[in-house]
Amino acid sequence: MRALVFKEGLSFRDDYPQPVLNNNEALIRVIYAGICNTDIEITKGYMGFSGIPGHEFAGVVEKSSDSGLVGKRVAGEINIGCGTCTYCHRGLGNHCPARSVLGILNKNGAFADYLTLTANNLHILPDSISDEEAVFIEPLAAAFEILEQVDITSADKVCVLGDGKLGLLISQVLSTTGCALTTVGKHKEKLSILEKMNISTALAPVPSERHFDIVIDSTGSQTGLETALSIVNPRGKVILKTTVAGSRPTDLNSIVIDEITVIGSRCGPFRPAIKALETKSVDVTPLISKVFPIEAGIEAMNYASQKGMMKVILNFK
Amino acid sequence: MRALVFKEGLSFRDDYPQPVLNNNEALIRVIYAGICNTDIEITKGYMGFSGIPGHEFAGVVEKSSDSGLVGKRVAGEINIGCGTCTYCHRGLGNHCPARSVLGILNKNGAFADYLTLTANNLHILPDSISDEEAVFIEPLAAAFEILEQVDITSADKVCVLGDGKLGLLISQVLSTTGCALTTVGKHKEKLSILEKMNISTALAPVPSERHFDIVIDSTGSQTGLETALSIVNPRGKVILKTTVAGSRPTDLNSIVIDEITVIGSRCGPFRPAIKALETKSVDVTPLISKVFPIEAGIEAMNYASQKGMMKVILNFK
Repeated sequence: MRALVFKEGLSFRDDYPQPVLNNNEALIRVIYAGICNTDIEITKGYMGFSGIPGHEFAGVVEKSSDSGLVGKRVAGEINIGCGTCTYCHRGLGNHCPARSVLGILNKNGAFADYLTLTANNLHILPDSISDEEAVFIEPLAAAFEILEQVDITSADKVCVLGDGKLGLLISQVLSTTGCALTTVGKHKEKLSILEKMNISTALAPVPSERHFDIVIDSTGSQTGLETALSIVNPRGKVILKTTVAGSRPTDLNSIVIDEITVIGSRCGPFRPAIKALETKSVDVTPLISKVFPIEAGIEAMNYASQKGMMKVILNFK
Repeated sequence: MRALVFKEGLSFRDDYPQPVLNNNEALIRVIYAGICNTDIEITKGYMGFSGIPGHEFAGVVEKSSDSGLVGKRVAGEINIGCGTCTYCHRGLGNHCPARSVLGILNKNGAFADYLTLTANNLHILPDSISDEEAVFIEPLAAAFEILEQVDITSADKVCVLGDGKLGLLISQVLSTTGCALTTVGKHKEKLSILEKMNISTALAPVPSERHFDIVIDSTGSQTGLETALSIVNPRGKVILKTTVAGSRPTDLNSIVIDEITVIGSRCGPFRPAIKALETKSVDVTPLISKVFPIEAGIEAMNYASQKGMMKVILNFK
């Protein structure tokens, strides 16, 4: 099968062996796969991953012991828990210490004609969601994770820091709560996507006299947390989405003095993400930069690596 | 009056003018005052404070428009809010942006024969609490703040990092919840205070395979937060009590990956602290290193600055 493979370097192959089904897994033919910043980080050594990257996909189930899935178009949750530990028993397989993660940790991913995934992780896609839209379900679920973690109401002043792909998804998700939302970014053209959706935006830097009850750091930048801490109210909440390589020198004293709560936030629930695309309460189409055929996968990865790039999609049709 | 005064350097004076009462304030004759690490930091420039430091005290009210207070022995909350902002209206005067703080910010403190403090900030002391014990009410309240912020039950595995004064107070407070508690420190003799109270302890470092639901960083060290993050369970909570000068280079990625909640914690409620001393559920007497007369205040501050020192108290009698 065709596959983008990372092993020291990134290569395209058309003779990669098709994956073998393990217990409870389904075999999925990939239609589209989205390139995420994590994939680019993986090619720089992140997670020490070696194999086929990719964790955002839409595909069709070709084989499964669950016959109701066969032939169905699906998206899939990416964490595969052991199923037996206390985390898995509490429904927190995302945090299973022995988990594998599709295309990120001990499990080949979606940049290939075929992938395998635990059938329980799959979600059948409604017809109203296009293949291109479906690759956004995984990052959109990560945006919805915030609503699982904090109550946001129309009484809250909220600021999203960052106008990258995740920042734009988070902004759209949070705007559904009716909160007083401002998204701060560095790119006028990206912020204009939100402006057209009647979401308030501002070009960075945020004036330090502006204060918010809840601030989301989706900057992907070393300094994002410190910026968030400088504009959050005492007793406010900062949602941290940013991971960066290594240590970041950060003045954390205001966390103590102002009794701020910092909440780390990673993967999220697929159901509300699928619902949001189905009901068009979130529009991901303006976030697509370009679609490349899988044969041009390396070019696509280079293209996606450019500063300020939005979603780049691999097409397997 | 006698006073320890910090202005560039620290000096003892016996001719310092007695403070003038403002609206709603009471005049308090100080009996004992405790030296806190914050006082030592102030003599190094922390908060840019200039004047009389000291914020832990027991005293007797000599003048007050509230006649019920006159002649009474009191301890006092140290944050003085403006009384009119949204924080003060919500009962969060501790976070009033225009607040002054006794002996820390724009307000002379307790290292003097007399201090003034808003009468509302005062708590009358029961006879069963000695003067020496009473100087611990303020830091003990800071320990109780943790219980205001997180629910801790007998089902929780909890670790307190740090066997300094605050760590020992926090350990005693948290042990009242019945949680599975371990306090980790570097000083066998300090940990032995807790062992005598049947609180489990361990000498640092904590084995990284040991994991906890809730970890309190009361190390006062640059690396405390990173240690806490290394031993907290996924979805666990870290209570941050440590402030350090400037930035600390910290790997914060596990906050995101493990979806940790980091909660800053500062001043706390006096009532449960007073109750705990009254009912002897917390014993602060083993935490007293030495009592100095106020005339030897500079010597006392030097003594308190020594590494590993416990509570040093100034006596005004």
